[in-house]
Amino acid sequence: MARLRLTLAYDGTDFAGWQIQAAGGGRTVQGCLEEALATLCGRAVRVHGAGRTDSGVHALAQVAHVDVPEHRAGLPWGKALTALLPKDVAVTEARLVAPDFHSRFDATGKEYRYTLWTRPGHVLPWRRPYVWDVGRYGALDVAAMEACAGLFVGEHDFAAFQNAGTDVHSTVRRVWDVSRLAGTGPDETVWRFHGEGFLKQMVRNLMGALVAVGRGKATPEDVAALLAAGDRRRAPGTAPAQGLCLHAVEYGAPGLGDKPAEPAGSTP
Amino acid sequence: MARLRLTLAYDGTDFAGWQIQAAGGGRTVQGCLEEALATLCGRAVRVHGAGRTDSGVHALAQVAHVDVPEHRAGLPWGKALTALLPKDVAVTEARLVAPDFHSRFDATGKEYRYTLWTRPGHVLPWRRPYVWDVGRYGALDVAAMEACAGLFVGEHDFAAFQNAGTDVHSTVRRVWDVSRLAGTGPDETVWRFHGEGFLKQMVRNLMGALVAVGRGKATPEDVAALLAAGDRRRAPGTAPAQGLCLHAVEYGAPGLGDKPAEPAGSTP
Repeated sequence: MARLRLTLAYDGTDFAGWQIQAAGGGRTVQGCLEEALATLCGRAVRVHGAGRTDSGVHALAQVAHVDVPEHRAGLPWGKALTALLPKDVAVTEARLVAPDFHSRFDATGKEYRYTLWTRPGHVLPWRRPYVWDVGRYGALDVAAMEACAGLFVGEHDFAAFQNAGTDVHSTVRRVWDVSRLAGTGPDETVWRFHGEGFLKQMVRNLMGALVAVGRGKATPEDVAALLAAGDRRRAPGTAPAQGLCLHAVEYGAPGLGDKPAEPAGSTP
Repeated sequence: MARLRLTLAYDGTDFAGWQIQAAGGGRTVQGCLEEALATLCGRAVRVHGAGRTDSGVHALAQVAHVDVPEHRAGLPWGKALTALLPKDVAVTEARLVAPDFHSRFDATGKEYRYTLWTRPGHVLPWRRPYVWDVGRYGALDVAAMEACAGLFVGEHDFAAFQNAGTDVHSTVRRVWDVSRLAGTGPDETVWRFHGEGFLKQMVRNLMGALVAVGRGKATPEDVAALLAAGDRRRAPGTAPAQGLCLHAVEYGAPGLGDKPAEPAGSTP
């Protein structure tokens, strides 16, 4: 057995998320990857991803590991897998790692990016699958959004920003950075979410709260109270999936606010 | 009758080009637009576009005109049409114009942009429909490409860069600028083609020649000789459609090398 570490870029538009579903549950990235790997390995294999992206969520650098037969270890995995995979997934890096490497348990940080379409008027057709159209709401109050973003930084109980459906031991997470980046064009604004880990739909819920504050539907003080109370039912809505991209998964010493090494390529 | 001038953005991926085809010829932008207009006008109408984009070619700001019934002139055309159109087309501007305005005959200049994927390795999945992957050819000789681009500027007989299939009176065209822009990311390079007008597939043929020069398959001198000889059969191949975008159509005093007003939004 040889353990392989894969870095994957995918367009989440036509996937029912990362994780294999029960029969009939739709096309998944993990499913496509396992199918391609089975062809190259000559037998079924199980892929372990660093995180489960939701349906419609994209990834620039998802990380996964898989055990492949020793005698196949030398294959040019990146090229071979990308050739077999559908065109909305690419393996951007493949390398052999120590047999105890674990894509999920060894991850020390994650970075997500969320893209807002902030120009009034229509979203350009080719940007629709990658942005949340908030341009229709008029100009957002960026100063209030940045004040709100500051509330999320640090170690907090994010129970109010977790969607139901996952059993977790603790809803406390450490967040290193929530900040606005320069957008990909004059029409868009990208938000960065960098932390040790995130709860289910937590990034989309944080983004939903930031936009509510930007629109004047809530104040940073409301959000501070919500964070303290831990009550999801009082929280603003969840931001749509298509604006979100898993930008990087980090290993090694935790980033503690440092900017992670930039993966090659750009957020969709 | 009232004449309407429309500016359209579309993702060419799933279109058989701009122009309506003979029966069974596939989905076209003009066809979709005429269908939406017929709904709003209560009768069939004919749309006239500034230029015919090929199958797979995108547009940030295609321009078209159409005559609509006088009593419907006051409709909020942009919103109403975009609501009826499929999601890969949007009307970004709609306004009433003089009844003698003609989208094609009045156009005094056009700008196209062509996007190359220049990083070695895989094209990111979400960029595939919008770029030509030349990263696989290794680093291009940019200085040679820029020297070659300079040959295209000015008034020339572009017979060697016209694809067969269109009857034109003259193959002479005036080109104001062919230059490399900063790309949308670290992985891409965008080329700008700005001129009075272009022959059928001329921009894709110029781009094909530029890449051949960048790869060392031809020299700028070869291209100069080709331009002088006017023989398409000796020219390098045509660049693929999906990298191309009709960026702007200009009206009024010809640009003569001036940068046109930047349309809102970005090339795909």
